[in-house]
Amino acid sequence: MSKKSIAVILSGCGNRDGSEIHEATLTLWAIHKNGADYQCYAPNITQHHVLNHITGQEMTEQRNVLIESARIARGAVRDLSDFDAAAHDAIIIPGGLGAAKNLSSYAFDGPDCSINTDVKKAIIAMFEDKKPIGALCIAPVILAKLLNQVRVTVGQDPATARNIETMGAHHTTTLHGEIVVDTEHKVVSTPCYMLDSRVDQIGDGVDRLVQEVLKLTTA
Amino acid sequence: MSKKSIAVILSGCGNRDGSEIHEATLTLWAIHKNGADYQCYAPNITQHHVLNHITGQEMTEQRNVLIESARIARGAVRDLSDFDAAAHDAIIIPGGLGAAKNLSSYAFDGPDCSINTDVKKAIIAMFEDKKPIGALCIAPVILAKLLNQVRVTVGQDPATARNIETMGAHHTTTLHGEIVVDTEHKVVSTPCYMLDSRVDQIGDGVDRLVQEVLKLTTA
Repeated sequence: MSKKSIAVILSGCGNRDGSEIHEATLTLWAIHKNGADYQCYAPNITQHHVLNHITGQEMTEQRNVLIESARIARGAVRDLSDFDAAAHDAIIIPGGLGAAKNLSSYAFDGPDCSINTDVKKAIIAMFEDKKPIGALCIAPVILAKLLNQVRVTVGQDPATARNIETMGAHHTTTLHGEIVVDTEHKVVSTPCYMLDSRVDQIGDGVDRLVQEVLKLTTA
Repeated sequence: MSKKSIAVILSGCGNRDGSEIHEATLTLWAIHKNGADYQCYAPNITQHHVLNHITGQEMTEQRNVLIESARIARGAVRDLSDFDAAAHDAIIIPGGLGAAKNLSSYAFDGPDCSINTDVKKAIIAMFEDKKPIGALCIAPVILAKLLNQVRVTVGQDPATARNIETMGAHHTTTLHGEIVVDTEHKVVSTPCYMLDSRVDQIGDGVDRLVQEVLKLTTA
C-alpha cells in the first residue's frame, strides 16, 4: 500500500505575518511520524506585510508568501494555484497570522472576511471529494467561512468563537493538545498557540490531529 | 528543583542562509518535552546573504540574523552579545547553513574558518564552566574549530569529516537519529539534515541529544 499523501497549505514563515513555524514544522513531523508523506503548497502572492518579530513593527519591505514558505518546506513547496485534489488524501492548514492575513482577510474583516481564491478552491475541492481537512490555531476561521455549519475549535478565545458562530459555524472550547472532530464534514481542528502553550503541547495536539485526519481518510 | 535552562544559538531562519527550521523547532520541542526551559540567542549582525529557498538564487536584500531568528523564537530571542553563561545549564547550536555562513565562515573558508566573536565567547564560557554543549547537522564544525581534540559527528560526509580532523578534532560516522557523546568535553552531536532524513528522524536525533545534554548537566 502506498503512503497517504497530505497537502499542507503554508502562508509565509513566522507567526506574526506568515505560518507559525512550530505548528508548521510539527505538522510535517507528525505526518512523517504517522507513516504518511506531505506536499507543501502556498499561494504565489505578496505578504500582507512584513513584521519585525521582536518589536512587532512593520518593516519597509515586501516578501512573497510562496518564496518565504519555502524556508519551512526546505524548498519543496508548490504554487497553490497548481493544487490537484486527486493527488492528495487530506489537507492541513497550520496556524500563524499568515492564515488570517495572507490566506484570508480575517485579521482585518472578521466574519466578513474574504478567502484567497486558491485556498478556497483547494478546500472546496477536498470537501467535495469527501477528503479530511485539518486546521490549527486560527486557521479554522477559514473553514468556518467556507463550510456551512462546520464544527471547529480555536481554544478558549470568546471573541473568535463568536465570530465563528456569526459565520454560520459552531465552536467547541478546548484545552492544550485537545482536538475537535466534525465527522460529518471530516474536519479536525486543534488550538495550538491560540492558547499559551509549551512547544511539546503543540506537538501533542498536532500529532493527535494528524492521526485523526489519517483515520478519516478511510472512513 | 527549578527547571534546567538551555541556551539555543540561532543563525537566522531558513536552512540555506540561516538556522534549519525543523532542527531549531525540534530542539525547542525536545527541551520542553524533557522538562527543561530554553532561551534563544542570535548574533545581532547582517546575514551573509539572503537566498530564495526555492531557486537557491541570491536575493537583492539584506536581513538581520537576530531579527530573522525571532521568527523561530516567536519574538523571545536575545542578542548573543548579552549572553551570560551563569544563567544557563547547557547550550545547543542547531544546524542550517547559517551556522556555516553567519555564526562562522566555514562555508567559505573550510578548516581556516573564523568564528563569530559572540559565538566564540559563549561556547568558550560554557566549556570553561564544564557545562554541556550540543551541536546539530553542520554546527559541530564550530566546536571542532574551538575545542581542541573534541569528538563530533556530521553523519556520513567524508569531506566535512576530513576538515574536522584538519582542525584538530575527531569525527565519528553516524546514521539517522544517532548521537555522538564526547564525555571529556561534554559535547553531544547528531547529524540531522547532513543526512537525507525524514522529519521524524530529525525529531528522534534531537530528542536523544537533548536527553544526553541534560544528563551531562549533572555529570
